[in-house]
Amino acid sequence: MLDDGFHVFDTTLRDGAQREGVNLTVADKLAIAALLDDFGVGFIEGGWPGANPKDTEFFQRARTELTLKHAQLTAFGATRRAGVQAADDPQVAALRDSGAPVVTLVAKSDDRHVELALRTTLDENLAMIADTVSYLRDNGQRVFLDCEHFFDGYRHNPDYALGVVRTAAEAGASVVVLCDTNGGMLPADITRVVTEVHAATGARLGIHAQDDSGCAVANTVAAVDAGATHVQCTANGYGERVGNANLFSVVAALVLKHHRTVLPEGCLREATRVSQAIAEIVNIAPATHQPYVGISAFAHKAGLHASAIKVDPDLYQHIDPVLVGNDMRMLVSDMAGRASIELKSRELGFDLEGNRETLGRIVDRVKAMELAGYSFEAADASFELLLREELGQPVRYFEAESWRAISERRHDGSNVSEATVKLHVKGERVIATGEGNGPVNALDRALRSALEGVYPELAGLELSDYKVRILEGSSGTDAITRVLLGSTDGRSEWTTVGVGENVIDASWTALESAVNYGLMRQGHASDPG
Amino acid sequence: MLDDGFHVFDTTLRDGAQREGVNLTVADKLAIAALLDDFGVGFIEGGWPGANPKDTEFFQRARTELTLKHAQLTAFGATRRAGVQAADDPQVAALRDSGAPVVTLVAKSDDRHVELALRTTLDENLAMIADTVSYLRDNGQRVFLDCEHFFDGYRHNPDYALGVVRTAAEAGASVVVLCDTNGGMLPADITRVVTEVHAATGARLGIHAQDDSGCAVANTVAAVDAGATHVQCTANGYGERVGNANLFSVVAALVLKHHRTVLPEGCLREATRVSQAIAEIVNIAPATHQPYVGISAFAHKAGLHASAIKVDPDLYQHIDPVLVGNDMRMLVSDMAGRASIELKSRELGFDLEGNRETLGRIVDRVKAMELAGYSFEAADASFELLLREELGQPVRYFEAESWRAISERRHDGSNVSEATVKLHVKGERVIATGEGNGPVNALDRALRSALEGVYPELAGLELSDYKVRILEGSSGTDAITRVLLGSTDGRSEWTTVGVGENVIDASWTALESAVNYGLMRQGHASDPG
Repeated sequence: MLDDGFHVFDTTLRDGAQREGVNLTVADKLAIAALLDDFGVGFIEGGWPGANPKDTEFFQRARTELTLKHAQLTAFGATRRAGVQAADDPQVAALRDSGAPVVTLVAKSDDRHVELALRTTLDENLAMIADTVSYLRDNGQRVFLDCEHFFDGYRHNPDYALGVVRTAAEAGASVVVLCDTNGGMLPADITRVVTEVHAATGARLGIHAQDDSGCAVANTVAAVDAGATHVQCTANGYGERVGNANLFSVVAALVLKHHRTVLPEGCLREATRVSQAIAEIVNIAPATHQPYVGISAFAHKAGLHASAIKVDPDLYQHIDPVLVGNDMRMLVSDMAGRASIELKSRELGFDLEGNRETLGRIVDRVKAMELAGYSFEAADASFELLLREELGQPVRYFEAESWRAISERRHDGSNVSEATVKLHVKGERVIATGEGNGPVNALDRALRSALEGVYPELAGLELSDYKVRILEGSSGTDAITRVLLGSTDGRSEWTTVGVGENVIDASWTALESAVNYGLMRQGHASDPG
Repeated sequence: MLDDGFHVFDTTLRDGAQREGVNLTVADKLAIAALLDDFGVGFIEGGWPGANPKDTEFFQRARTELTLKHAQLTAFGATRRAGVQAADDPQVAALRDSGAPVVTLVAKSDDRHVELALRTTLDENLAMIADTVSYLRDNGQRVFLDCEHFFDGYRHNPDYALGVVRTAAEAGASVVVLCDTNGGMLPADITRVVTEVHAATGARLGIHAQDDSGCAVANTVAAVDAGATHVQCTANGYGERVGNANLFSVVAALVLKHHRTVLPEGCLREATRVSQAIAEIVNIAPATHQPYVGISAFAHKAGLHASAIKVDPDLYQHIDPVLVGNDMRMLVSDMAGRASIELKSRELGFDLEGNRETLGRIVDRVKAMELAGYSFEAADASFELLLREELGQPVRYFEAESWRAISERRHDGSNVSEATVKLHVKGERVIATGEGNGPVNALDRALRSALEGVYPELAGLELSDYKVRILEGSSGTDAITRVLLGSTDGRSEWTTVGVGENVIDASWTALESAVNYGLMRQGHASDPG
């Protein structure tokens, strides 16, 4: 357990959920909280009980369904309304009754917001802060105070903004968090303001940075440089508008660059897994180019680099990717050329070093296929099939004669999809039909049904992911379609790619490769029908 | 025309093209160069002539096909090989013959890279720099020198790194660019190092920041704070691994926050258009959450904010979005509630202020549909159809009885898609069949063919974009599919959304709405078949 000297405070479940397109269920929130706890954050802000029925339910269910190893659950809410006692405000009562050991209260600290948005007086706003903080403290809860729009307020009326900080600290808030709510700050100004506020008030300070200038991570680190000891972040930087300071980038900078112990031992290595698992739950494709934890974060493509990486990978990486649970990857791409393809092949267990002619043929074929819309960067299995073919070990277990997929909406409003495939397998002609909830699902079932007599282990192979990308999207449905298909046999996963004029055609290509690759992994000798 | 005092240098076409998944044709590069020139950058690095046939062709075609208003074209290349004269190195000759008025030379400045990657001596590396810079200068070209891995080198062997800067400046390089090639720096260290190098050498300095720490924009601004007067960036931050410093964020920070004139008058307002147009050409979906120019950058969803934004939008934005050619948007989402839906409806021309009951019904229906997988955030046309229906003005021009789509790969290897629709239009039952290159294209043609007798103007309606998103992607093809369909009648564009068990079903829903919306825009009175 870490001491209280530095707080990593996560607000994915509250502020992160403001991101456009995000809509979390209570089950989602519980699953995300467990992942954040695996990552070792000190505080998990769960939502606003009382203001949102889903959040109220979250805090109720968390009491029995969530066991936290590292984190404390935190409830978010506002200071009391103007003109009532904190004890008489039902919104404050919901915070008191949430069962959360910590409450984060948001308060206005920009005088214009007090007058225009809150529509009360500057003095009453201070009274609301003092009264609400003391009331919750008397109830045994720890209180952090978020100063909304602090940096704008400090620019406009520094005395009032400082008054808010002092009022909160004197009333018993254990951290006063300076929020760049509109996200417009740059690091040098953050350093200056945090230094000044710290000197003027002596309060323990936190930082909450939105990313509207693209500087939220740098702003958070700048505030820590200036003395802040509490950082508010969200997983993958999710948040309203552009987003919030990215939890993984902030923590990695503090641990790996500033050598501070802000997470429990071993937790930083969970970063990539936790980031990707949260993206899955939130149902946003993981940002491939995200610092530290993105799938591209340590991916090398330039021919120039690839040849030198063979000498010493550390010369081309700012950190060892293992420290954040990520990996170096070599990309197969027409920009790469021989060195990358050679390294990639070695990764897959094929040494092409002495085989210049084959290597050249593979490079040419990859270039030609990429030109037609293929992308092997995420489809290792398809690349391996290509590689084996060029090495004279083609992997094929059937020959497709033809296929057909029909989708219809019937008269009675029901949807039906049905597919038929005609194959040659081990010298036999097989015709099989499958039904599914869509044309690709029906084709998949028809294909397995045709092959299962000869290869019964296909029953254990499952599609685990299906992604469609339309290339040249400006020409509507005339565009080329690229499909990436994830498959699993329960022990490992692989991805295949298909390209075609339409989604069915492209899916078929990826399906064929997925099944061939799966049968190869089972140890079957190739038998092209 | 700006003076030479500050350089905005774009390297989208060279370093940006290193991004995973990017593969630019020469035509793409010419189109992107024209857009960057519209944005007013001073220098456009076009590629590495001689090293890459595509780049050689780009420089040849640029001489006749590219007319630049603001920018100078720049060729990228390396210092000469060890042990030869610059005049005898074909790679240097290609730079000389590129026709580019400016050459950016990359040189090693980290002693370990000189020894391990370049495999030459420290002295020979300095000689290579001096010789190549002078040779190209004597040829009448201006030379910028990129010090690769500068910050790592400066940490490891500051004397040698400073020696590289001095050698380049003395040989006539007009800017020496300090590159954080591995992208691991944080802003405070950038400020310190740039200040020290400037003091020690007096050279004119530039900055090239990779984004591996998520701080490339902040690092670039920090270098400018410390005296750098040349910034190397890429559009949308494209680049290897995590990417490069984002051109739009860097320029917006310098112009709007630091009040420097780094672009010609009026150019900053092109930022959003240029960003999105380049994303289209590069064929990467525009990053919705990108600072300043992303579609979400000024999008508000929280109920708390939405109600206050009605009072004064400037309290909730760090800049006026018009300054970068962007817009404020209100999002329709179940987190938003009444205030957002009311504002969104007003945006579409419907005043719901006095109509609390209808507003409540719309909020409930949006929530229910979002739960089923719909998303109205990008589909204004579908939202408007829903709104009109709830206001008692449903928009419908036909009733679909049934439809069927067939895709097949025939025996001879050819692909065929065919669809049949059965509709009721103005009291008549119509059956029509269409062929297409895929099932959705075939359905689209069948639908128009069925309607064109009654509504001939449908011939002018076109699908302009088609996006497929698989929701709950972890269950393979069993997942729910969401389709976003862009349509245009030549004057304006609109987007509709469809959700279904499969891609055909979801596409049909979006198609139906697209056609209904298009006919409404033509002024037809609703007539539900």
